[in-house]
Amino acid sequence: MYKIRTNRGEVFEGKDESLLQILQNHSVYVPASCGGKGSCGRCKIKILEGKVKSTSFFGISENEKSEGFVLACQSFPQSDIFIELPHQLITVSERIALANEKIIEKIFKTIELNPLVKRVNLKIQPPDIDSQADFERLKQAAGKDLSISRKLACQLSDFLRQNNWHVSLAITDDEIIDFVSDSKKIYGVAVDIGTTTVALALVDLEEGRIVDVATCYNSQINYGDDVITRIVYAEEKPEGLNILRKCIVDDINALLNTVSMRNKEGRIYYVTLSGNTTMCHLFWGINPKYIRQEPYIPTLNHYPVWRVSDARLSADSQIPVYTIPSVAGYVGGDIVAGVLASGLYENEELSLFIDIGTNGEIVVGNRDFLVTASTSAGPCFEGSGISCGMRATEGAVEVFRYQRENDSFEFKVIGNVPPRGICGSGMIDILSELFMSGVVDQKGKLIVDKSKHIKFKVQPPYGDSTARNPAGDSTALRAIQGSGFKEEDEEIRFVISSDCYITQSDIDNIIRAKAAIYAGISTLLEELGIQEKELKKVYIAGGFGEFLDVKKAVKIGMLPNLAEERFVFLGNTSLTGAILCLLSRQLRETAEEIAKKMTYIDLSRSKRFMDEYVSALFLPHTDWERFKELS
Amino acid sequence: MYKIRTNRGEVFEGKDESLLQILQNHSVYVPASCGGKGSCGRCKIKILEGKVKSTSFFGISENEKSEGFVLACQSFPQSDIFIELPHQLITVSERIALANEKIIEKIFKTIELNPLVKRVNLKIQPPDIDSQADFERLKQAAGKDLSISRKLACQLSDFLRQNNWHVSLAITDDEIIDFVSDSKKIYGVAVDIGTTTVALALVDLEEGRIVDVATCYNSQINYGDDVITRIVYAEEKPEGLNILRKCIVDDINALLNTVSMRNKEGRIYYVTLSGNTTMCHLFWGINPKYIRQEPYIPTLNHYPVWRVSDARLSADSQIPVYTIPSVAGYVGGDIVAGVLASGLYENEELSLFIDIGTNGEIVVGNRDFLVTASTSAGPCFEGSGISCGMRATEGAVEVFRYQRENDSFEFKVIGNVPPRGICGSGMIDILSELFMSGVVDQKGKLIVDKSKHIKFKVQPPYGDSTARNPAGDSTALRAIQGSGFKEEDEEIRFVISSDCYITQSDIDNIIRAKAAIYAGISTLLEELGIQEKELKKVYIAGGFGEFLDVKKAVKIGMLPNLAEERFVFLGNTSLTGAILCLLSRQLRETAEEIAKKMTYIDLSRSKRFMDEYVSALFLPHTDWERFKELS
Repeated sequence: MYKIRTNRGEVFEGKDESLLQILQNHSVYVPASCGGKGSCGRCKIKILEGKVKSTSFFGISENEKSEGFVLACQSFPQSDIFIELPHQLITVSERIALANEKIIEKIFKTIELNPLVKRVNLKIQPPDIDSQADFERLKQAAGKDLSISRKLACQLSDFLRQNNWHVSLAITDDEIIDFVSDSKKIYGVAVDIGTTTVALALVDLEEGRIVDVATCYNSQINYGDDVITRIVYAEEKPEGLNILRKCIVDDINALLNTVSMRNKEGRIYYVTLSGNTTMCHLFWGINPKYIRQEPYIPTLNHYPVWRVSDARLSADSQIPVYTIPSVAGYVGGDIVAGVLASGLYENEELSLFIDIGTNGEIVVGNRDFLVTASTSAGPCFEGSGISCGMRATEGAVEVFRYQRENDSFEFKVIGNVPPRGICGSGMIDILSELFMSGVVDQKGKLIVDKSKHIKFKVQPPYGDSTARNPAGDSTALRAIQGSGFKEEDEEIRFVISSDCYITQSDIDNIIRAKAAIYAGISTLLEELGIQEKELKKVYIAGGFGEFLDVKKAVKIGMLPNLAEERFVFLGNTSLTGAILCLLSRQLRETAEEIAKKMTYIDLSRSKRFMDEYVSALFLPHTDWERFKELS
Repeated sequence: MYKIRTNRGEVFEGKDESLLQILQNHSVYVPASCGGKGSCGRCKIKILEGKVKSTSFFGISENEKSEGFVLACQSFPQSDIFIELPHQLITVSERIALANEKIIEKIFKTIELNPLVKRVNLKIQPPDIDSQADFERLKQAAGKDLSISRKLACQLSDFLRQNNWHVSLAITDDEIIDFVSDSKKIYGVAVDIGTTTVALALVDLEEGRIVDVATCYNSQINYGDDVITRIVYAEEKPEGLNILRKCIVDDINALLNTVSMRNKEGRIYYVTLSGNTTMCHLFWGINPKYIRQEPYIPTLNHYPVWRVSDARLSADSQIPVYTIPSVAGYVGGDIVAGVLASGLYENEELSLFIDIGTNGEIVVGNRDFLVTASTSAGPCFEGSGISCGMRATEGAVEVFRYQRENDSFEFKVIGNVPPRGICGSGMIDILSELFMSGVVDQKGKLIVDKSKHIKFKVQPPYGDSTARNPAGDSTALRAIQGSGFKEEDEEIRFVISSDCYITQSDIDNIIRAKAAIYAGISTLLEELGIQEKELKKVYIAGGFGEFLDVKKAVKIGMLPNLAEERFVFLGNTSLTGAILCLLSRQLRETAEEIAKKMTYIDLSRSKRFMDEYVSALFLPHTDWERFKELS
């Protein structure tokens, strides 16, 4: 056995297995869309110390090779080694930040589990000379008409005989999806295709339980941060559409391979998909160009249930893929999923739902009506377009506090490791605290008094606590020496650590994002003649959902000035909604109804929106009245 | 322009086109499953005179090359040439012998055309800012919910805009099959997969009309003449199943390519398929092994509607393929199609239906009940297993008469060309006439009096009459000098021409076939307690249907001894039934009901059947009483 140490401090043991296999054995997510065959070139890691034997360097440049990069799937340790994992690697512990299991648990206390694929155990009549064909007797035993794919039909007769006419099948309402071994669990996969982040949940359909989760960046990011840039790329570049399609399909396949390798006790029989309209079009290879051209019409909102083979996913070709329906070009299935997860659609009280991702989509309504609009927040809260931005994953500053009494800052890092970047909630905290402490003015400009010494409360060394609840416990907060203001590349940086700082243009980006969100909310409410205070609940979804400090978001004028208890954090409701659809045929029907019921209002043509946006570019707003009762 | 003469006497002109193209331009069917790309090696023809330039000899052996064989698709005339066409080549004029257009015409006088795919012309609302997606507005215009394939969805938005929102679609009940150009006709394809012969009809679904027909041998013949041998091959040989599947798929693709090239004014949007249970299993790649093992159970009788992509056919991948359901392991969709075409299932009178192919399947019943059985006739009536056997196509002796007054024989050849072989009806004629003239005894043995001079009435030269009605006109009959008895290879041959003779073992084969058919009929009737004379109609289907001389078939004891007017010849009812299903949703439903309603009786275990068979091995039968009133 050799020891494999990582730059994140983990130590694994392994021998005779590839590095990829060893890492995956220990739940370290490594992108490998080819499943470890050495043909995708994505599982690059850097060997810092020790020896490995590599059988292929596919996709690794000479330069990278000289720096020590190898393909994890093609490399085998020959000694103890020390490796550097790529930044985007995340561990399974991140699952707590993704789908909201509490919502799922709560919902299935009142409604029955009724998954899209079920196991049925059949006792089929053995044939005699007067018998019907095998498939006809199977349908008789099932008590209903069922379809079957050609591929399965080819295996049917042997399967029935080998199992002595007692068989388990995975079936939908009207189709046999696969033969099932008794000992195997029935899994489904829910996928959230975000513009910036892709998240996948492996779900046990019989237990109604999330088994595993994996996420990665949407590698379309290399072709543009927001949907508009991607649409332009798909439309104008040769092969642009295919390139973007391949990106997202490869990303999902990498996640699928990861969760499949980690969970071999079951098989996948259904896939549900949630994403904004453009992401869904790109995933299916449908050119989204007309979404960008007035009147912004998608090719389709309600998708037929296509197959894994149509999708090019790494799973059995006949597996159905359900796409949660969209509402309009800029309000997609992710929002329908969110409304489903929030329960807003069935409540009497008037509520607002907002999903803060690369787009900020807003829904106002109750069980009688649903109105929706979209505003472009940009990807900054998901960690893109900000110097040290990152997702809410290990190494991200997620909480940041200004201590008025001693004029110092404290912060908390996810995973209790040295800070590597700043996630969305950290950005809102930092902006709010810099503003409240006077370092940033009302126009969002850094006022740097270089003579001013900013102190940090330091709490070394780094423990291995995985607790992420920032409530109260200031000893969990930490700081690093060498922080403060620095001038580099002709720009003032507020530095937390060498890997982690924020610049003036980062602050400008964050302010534009919060202004777009607030302007979207206020314009939509005004269009509907609704006062902010009439909103009984504000449901917030998005990558940072669970850790967002609402008070601070209100302080910078991103959210309406309501009592804290009216805000409900839901986490990634796009993924949660996709899981709900997987677990309940009724909820899938409800998703279809929500999509049909929702009325879309286009803010992009609204003069009121532009006025609101310009006013919201201030901290918190030009109209101080709206935020005056703020504590 | 160069002149291309064929060994069949045709003369075509062509230049700059491949020989394949020139032949196809003149409706000469040449197998070319690759569609003329030079990759299947099937379009071999022999150059007897003149020069061609060949760009490839793929699949042609050195030996064949030295004999003058070339690939028609890769060879271009460089002078006037004289070519020899392979024996299996047939011309489009054969269509009259295939599907029975009269049945189709008659049926659609009483019921409406209601094809499985229809053209709809839609005027779709152009979008404004409040519009639904393109696909949703399309469904609105169609007034119903429709599904769409991913592939078509990818083209949808451009298609709608390019056509300014006025579009034609080919749709089934619930799915868009394709976009249609206004000027294109809507075609469907019906396929009859016989054990020996494959027939394909191209059908205009809007006019309810057969546009073109093509047939070829089922090239699985190379792996066995009957279904049992094929099942054994599929089960026991490595890749056996795949080889047999590829044979039939290639055959159908060759026919598809042929009719597609000849009929470019339309496109194919649906396929219906009719064949016996084993043929359907092999076509879909389903191992038929359990059909051979007691209790003879197929994998499935009722097939889901799979796709062209599942079938590996040469047509658009999303096109549906409907398989006419089977009844049991040895009564397939071809018989269900036959019962559908005959109308037996809806009549009050008791009737018998028999399809004389490689298997002889028998149905007895009326609108109240349907009972069926199968007997193995062997492939001889389709031209296989007989020294000079051939299908009922150009060059086949189809009528043969003994002239008592001058002790001579007359015969008629399809297409009025020199005789090249003997088809099923010719075999029955020959056996009957040799028996009646005393040349064959009651046990089926040739009694050769070599001294006896057999005269022929000769009518040279060969005209180009295409009339095939043998009624009365003895001038249409012809004979060839040099005919008579000859001894060759230690066997007595009755020789019609150098290419065309019949041997003792041929006669034995024919007698075994007729005995199996008669024994099947008589056993089934006995099992049901029905007298032959109670049958008001006897419907006869099979490749020779239209030209079978019933009296002679009764004389040799193949058919029950009933008045001639009770026999109805229906031709290839398997193909006709497949066409009916293509043209009418109701009739497709009826086919499903017929299959469910039919009761199968297994003759193979019946002692009565064996007794009947042994008795029927005599001419006409050991029980002379049954045939005594024969004129």
